[in-house]
Amino acid sequence: MAILTPTDLGGRVAWLGLVADREESLRSATVQAVALTFAGIEGESHSGLVRLSCNRVTGQYPKGTPIRNVRQVSIVSAEETAAVAEAMGLPALRPEWLGANLVVEGLPDLTLVPPSSRLVFAGGAALVVDMENAPCQFPAREIEREHPGKGAAFRGAAKHRRGVTAWVEREGRIAVGEAFRLHVPPQRPYPPLAP
Amino acid sequence: MAILTPTDLGGRVAWLGLVADREESLRSATVQAVALTFAGIEGESHSGLVRLSCNRVTGQYPKGTPIRNVRQVSIVSAEETAAVAEAMGLPALRPEWLGANLVVEGLPDLTLVPPSSRLVFAGGAALVVDMENAPCQFPAREIEREHPGKGAAFRGAAKHRRGVTAWVEREGRIAVGEAFRLHVPPQRPYPPLAP
Repeated sequence: MAILTPTDLGGRVAWLGLVADREESLRSATVQAVALTFAGIEGESHSGLVRLSCNRVTGQYPKGTPIRNVRQVSIVSAEETAAVAEAMGLPALRPEWLGANLVVEGLPDLTLVPPSSRLVFAGGAALVVDMENAPCQFPAREIEREHPGKGAAFRGAAKHRRGVTAWVEREGRIAVGEAFRLHVPPQRPYPPLAP
Repeated sequence: MAILTPTDLGGRVAWLGLVADREESLRSATVQAVALTFAGIEGESHSGLVRLSCNRVTGQYPKGTPIRNVRQVSIVSAEETAAVAEAMGLPALRPEWLGANLVVEGLPDLTLVPPSSRLVFAGGAALVVDMENAPCQFPAREIEREHPGKGAAFRGAAKHRRGVTAWVEREGRIAVGEAFRLHVPPQRPYPPLAP
């Protein structure tokens, strides 16, 4: 019996990028294809099976605890990012400034995609969506450098439009232009937390 | 900014078990404590960072494809399992017959817990819930051996009460009696799939 279900929703890879050294800069550099391994994107600074926990999960773990790395890949949506740019009064927001690895287009409401969903690519590779990514201060710095006076507006404008983080379930290569499909777990409220 | 949020919900470890060799038998054997590593439960037959994909995910991957192992730990609920036994007209269903590793009590509706939720244990270890587990035919065989004529009723009776599968996010030891708390991603419908 299958629990994970293919949907009619999907999209295509609009852009790919690598962060070479995240200690030095959040900026990602454009590439045409990436190799996904179980540790993440080959040659990417956020790769690894395990990472040291950060400020985002201090409600769960003391900072610096070794935990499984569910933040291997930062995915943003072309449509959501354009909406954030518009809200900020900017002509565009480059994915490099956001430290994104993958820009998708065609999939509605990427940031709201159900946690544990799978993005299954035409070539076979697959990513598991952990959950929504939280806007932090680093993109604001990059935006400020490009558009002085605009950086501070990012966090508010990007709320619930900052994309998701994901990790590799099936290895493979993905390239710009490649199609993918969204597969989801059962969609229902958890009764004890239902409004 | 934190996205994963602690809730007031939780429970405690009611039982722990290990499957020694799943090719031989689904049955798990009772233990008082287990060591969780990033590969799963130490000495457990379902452990591993990677597994070969099974019938459950043929909608995503050809059978036998190496994929990340999100089925390291089989968790069932004492309350849900008692309800399944009652529906089957049995005095009890032993977790050993289900191949369970962890029986929790006190957490309502375990099987419906939101995918990507975390169970954070008092001692520090943590599990990530992938999603609902699907009733398969193996527990039916074990039940049939114990209660002839009753096995076939399991699949229907256990639907949405079969528990969840999970994988280790933070390593550590967990023991019978230990408390845990449920942490959840944002609870909201995904608009394109909302009813």
